[in-house]
Amino acid sequence: MNTATSHLAPTAADAVVIGAGPVGLFQVFQLGLHGLRAHVIDALHHPGGQCAELYGDKPIYDIPAIQVCTGNELVQRLYAQIEPFAPTFHLDQQVNTVQAQPGGGFLVGTAQGTQLLARTVFIAAGVGAFMPRALKLPGLEAYEGGQLRYRVDEGTSLAGQRVVVHGGDEPAVQQAIACATAPEAQRPARTTLQHRRDVFDAPPALLEQLQTLRAAGRIEVAIGVASGIVEEQGRLTALELTTPEGQPLRLPLDLLLVRLGLVPRLGPITEWGLQLERKQLVVDPATFATSTPGIHAVGDAITYPGKRKLILSGFHEATLAAFAAAEWLAGHKLPLEYTTSSERLQGLLGVWKPGN
Amino acid sequence: MNTATSHLAPTAADAVVIGAGPVGLFQVFQLGLHGLRAHVIDALHHPGGQCAELYGDKPIYDIPAIQVCTGNELVQRLYAQIEPFAPTFHLDQQVNTVQAQPGGGFLVGTAQGTQLLARTVFIAAGVGAFMPRALKLPGLEAYEGGQLRYRVDEGTSLAGQRVVVHGGDEPAVQQAIACATAPEAQRPARTTLQHRRDVFDAPPALLEQLQTLRAAGRIEVAIGVASGIVEEQGRLTALELTTPEGQPLRLPLDLLLVRLGLVPRLGPITEWGLQLERKQLVVDPATFATSTPGIHAVGDAITYPGKRKLILSGFHEATLAAFAAAEWLAGHKLPLEYTTSSERLQGLLGVWKPGN
Repeated sequence: MNTATSHLAPTAADAVVIGAGPVGLFQVFQLGLHGLRAHVIDALHHPGGQCAELYGDKPIYDIPAIQVCTGNELVQRLYAQIEPFAPTFHLDQQVNTVQAQPGGGFLVGTAQGTQLLARTVFIAAGVGAFMPRALKLPGLEAYEGGQLRYRVDEGTSLAGQRVVVHGGDEPAVQQAIACATAPEAQRPARTTLQHRRDVFDAPPALLEQLQTLRAAGRIEVAIGVASGIVEEQGRLTALELTTPEGQPLRLPLDLLLVRLGLVPRLGPITEWGLQLERKQLVVDPATFATSTPGIHAVGDAITYPGKRKLILSGFHEATLAAFAAAEWLAGHKLPLEYTTSSERLQGLLGVWKPGN
Repeated sequence: MNTATSHLAPTAADAVVIGAGPVGLFQVFQLGLHGLRAHVIDALHHPGGQCAELYGDKPIYDIPAIQVCTGNELVQRLYAQIEPFAPTFHLDQQVNTVQAQPGGGFLVGTAQGTQLLARTVFIAAGVGAFMPRALKLPGLEAYEGGQLRYRVDEGTSLAGQRVVVHGGDEPAVQQAIACATAPEAQRPARTTLQHRRDVFDAPPALLEQLQTLRAAGRIEVAIGVASGIVEEQGRLTALELTTPEGQPLRLPLDLLLVRLGLVPRLGPITEWGLQLERKQLVVDPATFATSTPGIHAVGDAITYPGKRKLILSGFHEATLAAFAAAEWLAGHKLPLEYTTSSERLQGLLGVWKPGN
């Protein structure tokens, strides 16, 4: 947590969109058509949400008027479409709190210390924030951010450490290779890849590189089910394994990098006092308002009669949500204008020219 | 009316979609994903509806993930997308009747004599069928299809006739030019373009061609407000005009071609016993069912709380309507499948291959 920023005045925003998946991105577009500028917060390092994370390279056939596109292509297309509205992205951040303010608006705070004072909030969080899957062992949690890391960032020093990478899929294999091939000054003293069995699931090129590094003694592999930790004087000193033969094994370490992939977590959203039904936000399908006026919700996180979790429905939901929010802020009904014929909308889009 | 076909058994159809605008076309797509084949009826000669008719060459900016496209481009994209589902088009036809059948299903009849026995009906008629704007003069209506024509088709003989083209915009100018430049064997004896003033609204190239033909005496222009008709022995013999100077003028003719453009008419749809609210069909936004089970409605023809007349909302509506109809036909709930991962859907789309 960046505590410094919590003492600064929060940044004012017309709208905060929680979630940068396709529906969150289109929410920015529809807000833009109402002259409302958006800040977008997402737990991932890049926009796209599920669409990029779960089917980035897979084909989608049911986006209207797009015969086929991959998840990544869809995200790129939406990203280009919202460019005229210049949203501010806050990536690698999870929203923790959304608090109605006495003077109106909502204070939105992230786990990373960003504070935004939003006139309206749009929850487009899908199945939740994509967060690293945790390794659950008694007592381990206390070391998170210290000797236990789910992300390796610039502040993570590996140099001279005994590093254990836990996991059997691509992220773990990639992490072990990155450690073993780091520039010498930043390289761990020892890199161990730890998995319950000696089978790894990663692209052939990565598996080949892993094999080469194992043969050269630059990556060790420890096989066994992680069953506990060893602590000495407040330090994590080893991981306890049970080998496939049922034998206990102690794996000494200085740093444990857990790389088990990402899982979506609706998390804090369920704690903001909004009406839920089977973990889905209840909305009015005429306005996509939640039970709190000023907070709207769209996409896979919501429920209403007939709801289907489809991207194209999210586009419709985001559109009506933007209208409803704009009318709520204006205090009166707004007429429907068309991008084909409205000089005002074309001006906002930056495409108006005389004689259009 | 083709009376012959009314004696034949009607064609059986899973679904009849009334209206081939963008929403009607996407309705075909969503029905196709449920394995339901559609027949599509439209009053125009080509698919596209309003989108093609009113803004075929104009840019649209708010179709999700398509930064900009013209109305025609949007229609072409949707047309390509529905190709795997091989819908049957009935163009240049207006639906007159939709009658629930005692044995289930609906008998759908067009003014042109097409009869379809549909399990379900989807009204995607937008602002209505685009029909020629009528010239209203006492007694004139009786000549429609004979000496009065709103469309010129293969059965319309112009040869040797005194033809009067009524109108001042592009369709009228184009029609007069077409008459005057027809092959000699099919050319009228005289072509007169009749408009209330000597100002025509058409692209410069057409106006220039008109000028050349006027100078050559191949097109005459008669200026004045059409105020009545002259009949002799059951034949239409002349159009009565009042000139800008207030003088009466008789314009002798054999054939009157009225070319005043197209206007949308909701027409017969209002007479099928479906619940209406200010000329809009009332639907349940969870199913897009009208007040008659088995008849759904989507797009600009409908109303529900929060409704905005936007194409992207029509896409959502068509999707939920297809689900609801498929469940109604199946008699049970259907699970949501994704085109990205479902072998069944990919099979229907014709894109499935092993290892997808």
